[in-house]
Parts: sequence; structure tokens; C-alpha cells
Amino acid sequence: MSELDLIERLRRRVPVYSSQLVAGIGDDCAIVRPRGAKDDILVTTDMMLEGVHFRASDSPEYVGRKALARALSDIAAMGGEPRFCFLSIAAPSEDIVDRLYAGILPLAGETQTTIAGGDVARTDKVMIDVVVQGVVPRGQALRRDTAKPGDFVCVSGLLGRAAARNYVDMPEPRLAYGRRLRARATACIDLSDGLCIDLYRLCVASGVRAVIMDVPLHPEATTEQALYGGEDYELLFTLPRLPTRRGLQFVGRIRAGYPQLTYEGQPLEPLGHDHFHGTH
Amino acid sequence: MSELDLIERLRRRVPVYSSQLVAGIGDDCAIVRPRGAKDDILVTTDMMLEGVHFRASDSPEYVGRKALARALSDIAAMGGEPRFCFLSIAAPSEDIVDRLYAGILPLAGETQTTIAGGDVARTDKVMIDVVVQGVVPRGQALRRDTAKPGDFVCVSGLLGRAAARNYVDMPEPRLAYGRRLRARATACIDLSDGLCIDLYRLCVASGVRAVIMDVPLHPEATTEQALYGGEDYELLFTLPRLPTRRGLQFVGRIRAGYPQLTYEGQPLEPLGHDHFHGTH
Repeated sequence: MSELDLIERLRRRVPVYSSQLVAGIGDDCAIVRPRGAKDDILVTTDMMLEGVHFRASDSPEYVGRKALARALSDIAAMGGEPRFCFLSIAAPSEDIVDRLYAGILPLAGETQTTIAGGDVARTDKVMIDVVVQGVVPRGQALRRDTAKPGDFVCVSGLLGRAAARNYVDMPEPRLAYGRRLRARATACIDLSDGLCIDLYRLCVASGVRAVIMDVPLHPEATTEQALYGGEDYELLFTLPRLPTRRGLQFVGRIRAGYPQLTYEGQPLEPLGHDHFHGTH
Repeated sequence: MSELDLIERLRRRVPVYSSQLVAGIGDDCAIVRPRGAKDDILVTTDMMLEGVHFRASDSPEYVGRKALARALSDIAAMGGEPRFCFLSIAAPSEDIVDRLYAGILPLAGETQTTIAGGDVARTDKVMIDVVVQGVVPRGQALRRDTAKPGDFVCVSGLLGRAAARNYVDMPEPRLAYGRRLRARATACIDLSDGLCIDLYRLCVASGVRAVIMDVPLHPEATTEQALYGGEDYELLFTLPRLPTRRGLQFVGRIRAGYPQLTYEGQPLEPLGHDHFHGTH
């Protein structure tokens, strides 16, 4: 059973008790609509574990910044603006906690994200769980379950760089780009695990299929790396019309049908990084 | 350096970018005030790690329920009502993930808490990080930094039971009790780590000292266990007047002065469970 199946199974078991939940398990962020509020609230959770999501040899500053960047990318994918983050950190020493914070604080500053709480404990291996709370004008959150047949599939940049560079680069969350997509894109998701699996997730959520016509390759990347590599943290989105503007890469089309990807006339297995099984 | 000092040091390093943050690091929950909303939002984070907060031999159902109960106790301490929770889980198998959920779901149901998101990964040791988002009418959240000299210190029940029973009992978050304390108590905190350290935390936050006059002992507990044992998850609160009502135990008085506890005329070291150092 994959992470996708596991999350889907958990989602089915979970009853919803609140009418304020616009979207729960299954998208990049949950969407909550507080009584009387002007904005919807977005909440996302991202966990990074030593030996699973990063190596013991990675610097704590890098790990800290990346943990926050991944969560901010989820906010970007919903067209939101980050407001607060909550950090649960387990580490072998106070020095490592300090160094994780040294990686987190500059990115929090650049994105105006206030660290509003968290928890800390001592363990052998480093673990960091980041929760980011953001806002989006009421009803304007971008979702992954709203792509329509006929839509054009696009990405915010060239793909495969992270895989080609062996995941040493620091992702920059595409927050400004995500905000510009509000009221333009029909659906959006961030590319955390790879074009192939993330586009498949969008198709499953929207109940459509996709035809990949072009894979926008980073100059250093192979097609394989761009399709399956993951960690590019670009935005993958769908548009009803294809505009002629810069900073947008065409990938393909959404079609009616059972969730499936095709590329060069062949069905494509929805492979990518799976954090529960560590498989590609 | 203790967990208390570490959190205080982190708090000082963290800039606040948002005017919507009513209270950040330092209380049981952060308090967020969304634009136009009728309620304030409470957010709390609680992490439980195998070998630190529970034993490898504890059942996953017990661990799951307790993780949620601890976070709900933070919501209770602020006088709030839980709405949503987000669960980040790392575990060695899907079976253990399922069993953690089997412990979480009934308590989520009893307290009408909707599981709205989370993350999952595979690791050797079980780790669970629970974020609960709750609501409280605007401006009515109970805080730990608002106790006043002259206040009476009380607790919601008898203390030391968890320590006397070697922490096998399941805490019941005092949500209804916390709601009744709104507009009555001047300050409140939950007893997660022991009367002594948690009352000291309240004194530090409020800039006052406390005189312990009585330790409300559970029949099975020693004074030592009631003072330092922790995990009772009762509410510790301060009142301007001492009412004559049931279900409330008198502990002592708040006095002006540098944060300190005294008991039977002697200063009391603020000891208790410290999750960063594991000391008592």
C-alpha cells in the first residue's frame, strides 16, 4: 500500500464534525472558514525525518530551512499567504536545535511568517514537524480537485533540477506565483514528489485524466529526472486558456476519463517519491 | 539549560510579523485573531516520541489517544473548544499507523474534533505530533500570564494519581471545566508536568510568586507525587475570590514578587518533568 492509498484509507475513516471545514485531508492544505472571517485559513503539516527525508550529514541549517520551505510550498499551491508556523523539533542537542532555527528564521523573515509555537524534545535522530497556517481571500483557495476536461496543464518553471543536482539546492516556495494564479488557474498542486505522481494526484482528486505533451526540462536534467525526480517545488496548475506569458511552461491537457497519465501515446505509471515506502 | 529556558531563549529570537497574533510562544496555545472573525483561534502542538514520552511496550492505541488528549488539555487550559486536528505520524508499519488512529478516533469523536490533515512516514520508532486548532469567543481565552497578587490558586481535581499509578491511566482533557472557567478565572494552565513546575511557569509568565498552602492529594498519591509527578492533566487556575463550590481544590495564594514558590515556609525548587532533559 502506497502513501497515497494509506492517506486515502485514513481519509475515509475520518468523520467531519465541523461545518467550518471547506477541505480536509487530501489537498496540500486544509481549508477552514471561521465564522464571520474575511479570509479562509489554510493549514499544512510537513514532517522531515533524518534518514527518510534527509541525511544525517546534511547541515541542520539546511534541514531547518527546507522543512519550512516545503510547508510554504503547500501554502503557495493553494494561492495563500503564510502567517504563522508551529515547529515541533526533536534533536540530540541544544546546539542542533539552535542551528535548525538558524536555517528557519531567515526564510520565516523573508516570507513574513511568525513562529507562534511549537514543542521540543531530545532524541538521537533529528525530526522536525512544521505546521504553517496561512490565509487566502474567502473562497479563492486553489485546489487540486477542480481541474476540468479541456484545461491546459502548466508548470511554473523547468523541471528536474533538484534530481539532477542530487537534491542539494534549496527550494524557493513559489508564493508570489501562487497568489497570481488565484482566479486564473482552475486547479493547482505543488511538485514535491515529481511531475508524474503529482499530476496523477491532481487527476485522481479531480476525476480526470491528463495527456503529457511536453516535459519542460531543466538544462541539466534528463526526462526521467523531470518526470519522477521530485523536490522541484514548482507549481503544477491547470488553465482554461493558454496565455502567452513568460514564466509559464506548457505540459499538456486535461481530458475526461478515469485517472491516468499518457505520454507519447503510452500510459505512464504514476511513480514518484513515496515517503512511506521510500520507493521511486 | 532546561526546556523552559530553551523555549524562552527561542521566544526572544522570534520576530512577530503579524498583528493577528494575540499570544505566541509561551502559553499552552497560540491565540490568533482572524480579520472580522467572531472567535479567536487557538493552536497547540504536542509531540510524543517513543523512548521519551512513552515506552516501546505501550500499545499504539494508548499512545494515539494520549497524544490527542494532551493537545486537547492545552485547549481546555485556554477555555477553548477543539475543532480540528492535524496528525503527523512516523511508524514502522501501516498496522501501527492504523492502531494509532484506532486510539485517536474515539476521543476525536467524543470531543467533536475533526481530523483535517497530517503527514505519514516510515521509521523504526513511533513518533506522533498532534496539532489541535480550537476556538474561544473573541478575547475570552484563559492565559497563564494574567494571574494577580491576591488571587486564589486552585486545581480542578486531586493530584498525583498519574504518578501513583505509574502513568498507565488515560488523561481526560478537562474541556467542559475549562469552558466554565472563562470570565471566572484570572489565569489558567494545564498540569502536564507537575503542580510545582506548572505553577512556577504560571508565576514566571504572570510576574508573580505563589504560596502553596495545601496539596490536594489523590488517595493513592504521596505529596511528592502530587507536587512533581505530572501527567494529571487537571487545570491549575487562579480566582479573584474563593467560591464555595464542589469540584474545585484550594492550593494557595498568588503574591507580588519575583517568581518563586513557597511551601510550608520553604522555597520550593521548580522541578518537574522536562522533556528536553528527561529529568525530574
